[in-house]
Amino acid sequence: MEPINVIKVGGAVVEDEASLHLLLHEFSSLPGRKVLVHGGGRSATRLSDRLGIQSRMVNGRRVTDEETLRIVTMVYGGLVNKGLVARLQGLGVNALGLTGADINIIRSHRREPKEVLMPHGGREVVDFGFVGDVDEVDAHMLGLLIEQGIVPVIAPLTYDGQGHLLNTNADTMASEVACALAAEGYGVTLTYCFEKRGVLRDAHDEDSVIPQMSEEEFRQLVRLGIVSDGMIPKLENSFSAIRRGTERVVITRADNLSGSSGTVLVKE
Amino acid sequence: MEPINVIKVGGAVVEDEASLHLLLHEFSSLPGRKVLVHGGGRSATRLSDRLGIQSRMVNGRRVTDEETLRIVTMVYGGLVNKGLVARLQGLGVNALGLTGADINIIRSHRREPKEVLMPHGGREVVDFGFVGDVDEVDAHMLGLLIEQGIVPVIAPLTYDGQGHLLNTNADTMASEVACALAAEGYGVTLTYCFEKRGVLRDAHDEDSVIPQMSEEEFRQLVRLGIVSDGMIPKLENSFSAIRRGTERVVITRADNLSGSSGTVLVKE
Repeated sequence: MEPINVIKVGGAVVEDEASLHLLLHEFSSLPGRKVLVHGGGRSATRLSDRLGIQSRMVNGRRVTDEETLRIVTMVYGGLVNKGLVARLQGLGVNALGLTGADINIIRSHRREPKEVLMPHGGREVVDFGFVGDVDEVDAHMLGLLIEQGIVPVIAPLTYDGQGHLLNTNADTMASEVACALAAEGYGVTLTYCFEKRGVLRDAHDEDSVIPQMSEEEFRQLVRLGIVSDGMIPKLENSFSAIRRGTERVVITRADNLSGSSGTVLVKE
Repeated sequence: MEPINVIKVGGAVVEDEASLHLLLHEFSSLPGRKVLVHGGGRSATRLSDRLGIQSRMVNGRRVTDEETLRIVTMVYGGLVNKGLVARLQGLGVNALGLTGADINIIRSHRREPKEVLMPHGGREVVDFGFVGDVDEVDAHMLGLLIEQGIVPVIAPLTYDGQGHLLNTNADTMASEVACALAAEGYGVTLTYCFEKRGVLRDAHDEDSVIPQMSEEEFRQLVRLGIVSDGMIPKLENSFSAIRRGTERVVITRADNLSGSSGTVLVKE
């Protein structure tokens, strides 16, 4: 099986010049087939603020009305995506920026309003607006591009099949891309880059990285309250990717893409 | 020679829902190979205004400082480009949005500060900032995409070869793309779509379209003051494209892409 690296970088990494610089150098040095999936939420929030538009987040997900969709299309599809593509080209990476609509590569459907458990404990029906849940990744076409030496750089926007972009969680997109490439026959390593060196036993101690974790161990760490908040959906996504054929998921910091440290998630 | 249509649409067309709707339907009905190059200046100005950033235009060209480059990257590369791609996909066109940086497709260099004849008559040295003049279009790669049934949708941003996007005039880009495809062996028709039905003898009479024009006739119409202002650079670009191998240039309105009316520019 041909190996391929799918790297997800969050907004906090791409929006800080020092960490972005590190990331781009690490990413451009990675040999072989690779895909970059990025976020950009903080820039979207910043632009919304400057335009006097209130950003509404529910459980870390952005409620996306028409104006917010315009903002994320500008920020994710334009500012962040094209900025990454240009800088990667400058480092010799033949990057191609894509949203789900480009060559119809990632199809989704608009999420129905659904009942959500709110942080304060109650339940509420939330319409997330123009938010998409991924249905299908055209891994065959992605593979064709990759085999020509092209490096897809994917923005967190998917396509509803009817002329509209939908705002989509970048972690989920990375995991869907990884699984689709695995189903296409690649040996996929999916790496989530964020601000920390890995999943920490103690959130305040960067040296407390948990080096390896099975799904069983993850559930136990959740019960013990050691893994909590934003890490839970990230790890849920990761184990789902492993169940669906991704060989290896690594959670680490942007300066460690080669994966010598960080948390490695493994099959039971 | 395989025929190909390169269509340029200006900001005024893509930013008005009625004319955009017409354009997209006309464009999606065009049979065979095609490329869309778009502008978006009015949306960029509107976003600049909302953010309290002054847009400075010199002879119709935008002076592009760092903040303005961020704005045009968002608007041209994100909002307008990805909006067009999604809507074209909805009409069955396998669109792929590109800036010059994507797969390194359109290379340019930053324009040196230069002396410009100002509208009030004086001369002034103007630094246009992050503005690019096109050096090279990778028509071979464009051709490979097109032969796979992909329809490139090109935003007016080029790549400086060193990690940076540059703001570039969309008319010029369309003409550079047309000439590069002609040099690659295609029989190219370049169509400029704007708000008028063609080049008019009388700016206030839509029925006064000049059906055909040679470069010699164009120079005469300029001397007579019949062709003036914004039409002059558009026509200069067009005749330059014809001298460099483009078969045919048509100047017309978005609802007339099939080219039964409009102004056709011909070789002497």
